[in-house]
Amino acid sequence: MTQAANDRSEASVVAVARRARAASRALARVSSGCRSQGLLAAAAAIEEGSKRILAANERDCHAAQPAVASGSMSAATFARLRADERSIAQMAAQVRQVAELADPIGRRLAATELDRGLVLYKESCPFGVIGVVFESRPDVVPQVAALALKSANAILLKGGSEAAETNQAIVSIWRACLGKFPAIPIDSIQLLQTRADVIELLALDRDVDLVIPRGSYELVQFIMRHSRIPVLGHGEGICHVYVDRAADIGKALDILYDAKVQYPAVCNAAETLLVHEGIAREFLPQMVSKLKRAGVEIRGCLRTMALLPSDGIVPATESDWATEYSDLILSVKTVASSEEAIEHINRYGSRHTDTIVTEDAEAAERFMNEVDSAGVYQNASTRFADGFRYGFGAELGISTSKLHARGPMGLEGLTTYKYKLFGDGHTVADYTSGEKKFRHRKLD
Amino acid sequence: MTQAANDRSEASVVAVARRARAASRALARVSSGCRSQGLLAAAAAIEEGSKRILAANERDCHAAQPAVASGSMSAATFARLRADERSIAQMAAQVRQVAELADPIGRRLAATELDRGLVLYKESCPFGVIGVVFESRPDVVPQVAALALKSANAILLKGGSEAAETNQAIVSIWRACLGKFPAIPIDSIQLLQTRADVIELLALDRDVDLVIPRGSYELVQFIMRHSRIPVLGHGEGICHVYVDRAADIGKALDILYDAKVQYPAVCNAAETLLVHEGIAREFLPQMVSKLKRAGVEIRGCLRTMALLPSDGIVPATESDWATEYSDLILSVKTVASSEEAIEHINRYGSRHTDTIVTEDAEAAERFMNEVDSAGVYQNASTRFADGFRYGFGAELGISTSKLHARGPMGLEGLTTYKYKLFGDGHTVADYTSGEKKFRHRKLD
Repeated sequence: MTQAANDRSEASVVAVARRARAASRALARVSSGCRSQGLLAAAAAIEEGSKRILAANERDCHAAQPAVASGSMSAATFARLRADERSIAQMAAQVRQVAELADPIGRRLAATELDRGLVLYKESCPFGVIGVVFESRPDVVPQVAALALKSANAILLKGGSEAAETNQAIVSIWRACLGKFPAIPIDSIQLLQTRADVIELLALDRDVDLVIPRGSYELVQFIMRHSRIPVLGHGEGICHVYVDRAADIGKALDILYDAKVQYPAVCNAAETLLVHEGIAREFLPQMVSKLKRAGVEIRGCLRTMALLPSDGIVPATESDWATEYSDLILSVKTVASSEEAIEHINRYGSRHTDTIVTEDAEAAERFMNEVDSAGVYQNASTRFADGFRYGFGAELGISTSKLHARGPMGLEGLTTYKYKLFGDGHTVADYTSGEKKFRHRKLD
Repeated sequence: MTQAANDRSEASVVAVARRARAASRALARVSSGCRSQGLLAAAAAIEEGSKRILAANERDCHAAQPAVASGSMSAATFARLRADERSIAQMAAQVRQVAELADPIGRRLAATELDRGLVLYKESCPFGVIGVVFESRPDVVPQVAALALKSANAILLKGGSEAAETNQAIVSIWRACLGKFPAIPIDSIQLLQTRADVIELLALDRDVDLVIPRGSYELVQFIMRHSRIPVLGHGEGICHVYVDRAADIGKALDILYDAKVQYPAVCNAAETLLVHEGIAREFLPQMVSKLKRAGVEIRGCLRTMALLPSDGIVPATESDWATEYSDLILSVKTVASSEEAIEHINRYGSRHTDTIVTEDAEAAERFMNEVDSAGVYQNASTRFADGFRYGFGAELGISTSKLHARGPMGLEGLTTYKYKLFGDGHTVADYTSGEKKFRHRKLD
């Protein structure tokens, strides 16, 4: 169907993985400066190759027409598939942004003199070989390729078959560009062709260090079930907004709207609203009026139902609390206390990102310490859970895993970390609209 | 066979795990000071309970007699099983040492002002519930219990059945002590009874965050195969000593002797010696003479064989390079270059700990950057791979895993770390004998 982007002499997945392993060994020797130069050159190559990419994308879009017509591909998916001059310029800009980030390799994380002349350093280093399996969006390719090269990792990519031509064009351009840098092995990036290739790859735990699935819950579950290689990724995004008794109602409305409506299909969108009974009577009617205008279906617990006019609000069932709608649906529960909210989140949540809206610092501290999620926020939308917004320059995915230790594990091996975000009613919409800009200033 | 240490009203593993989960939520609220006080009290309780522990241990040792007599339990295993006043004093001392460590929880790992009033912190926090499965040695119980309480994690312990009475006595004393601290839940520590309990536990991925197997390769493999919960542990310890062309022969002999002979049964002992051909003729005969005196069997590659008198040296086969002997056996390979040594280690090693003996800083740098192991050393014995020696105060195990990311993963999620150790011929024997002492001074 498509020409091979890898110029493979040998097509077996084992051979591809072994070449990636060899490339990763060579990458460990490439200087930080050379890796950054490679990225700047790749950004330029993507811009110069835009005609080729667009032509390939045109073939993908054309091939997708029957699926769009039959309804098996949604309009949203088709929109994500389509590339244009502007999206290609964005790809190049993202690659340049990654090039400018600080080198993540060789950072000294700790240093201890064990004895005279015996000094121990803890230093960051690459994983080695990373497999990334993702769905339709072709802009993932340059983003992941840039992160991998910056961090001196070799990658094996498998994109959605809908974007096969586009992905091949980008990878082919990227590899041709790497070919101009004698120190950087071309096999730092390789494309896998089929789903069968992926399944074969998942057994190669000696040659591949890490697999990152990006896409639907089904994709992630499939990878996790079949992999002998460690998998980083998130199962689901069941994120909560908890409106505390001491909430500022204006902030609560803005945050909930942002978290539910701004982009409901993504994992950091909110699925469940928890409301303290002490503020429910005042907050709930305003909430319903605001969200109904945006077309949100609301499913309430019995106590919530009792506080609202019955038109258009349906009762929530037990399964609602454990459902990632990824759609304009919100489940709502009225709780008697912060403790009940925390317990609900720890029971039904997916340990992704949850936020408390409150002006009470003590309630916030307790929520943020006791909710067992990768992100716990005060007065900010769950939609901030994103590598760009966190100031990482780019994102590979969002992990709800807690693992991290290597070598002898002492106390540090028994801890993980969480991100705490303190806001003042902040919403992502202000940043995507361009009204506000991130600063990303490091604090000491 | 033994009385229940957990005072269980409900005996199912699910119920035990749920109680651990509830305990972990409560532990998240316990102050650092209270956790440390709990540890100091537990240390005192172990000392005060020494008669009870010794009586229980006597029952275990008595029950083990038939196994020792029939040879199904080795003398070494029996020696590890036996406790005495001195080993109980050591247990208490280790618990006090952990109490004095800095609090690992709530450490600010990063702080970023995303925008005015929007501040992101990366902070350390507990895992939650950790299952630890280990073999015979009862001194693991207070060590693991101390690390868990210090780091505010609830633990579920399953020890070897040989030490069942001793383990129960220690856990029972520990729980009684926790009972005096209203803030600390007693179910912070619970004992599992049977291997069937462990298998049941491994399916509870919602209630248990992490499983740590400590023991034989078979135990670790068994746990990894059966677990739906993330597992931290090392598969094997195939550690290498590489004697470079620019090695100081005196250091090389001392390091190799320490790494092979000092304690051959442990995972950080060396299994394979790699020798640069430029130094092999001079080094190998001295090495053989020194190691043969210690009763080490030597298995050489063809080039090694050719450089040595044939008496008592047997040829190595392909499988030798991939074998963890855990015994006084050493495989030896003569290599043409540092590159060949690095390739050999990355191919056959277990990514645990490997050392280069060299006075050539450039050769060391290359070795340490390119060998893909959790510990890469210059001029020091592989036996230093240990939490106490690294200055952690205690050790939970040694991880050869590379995973660690949580939440949005940017560049940092694509890196892991390694420990680099620069020595000057250092051996562990000098520290275990008491001739030298660790300083563990933090450097900036």
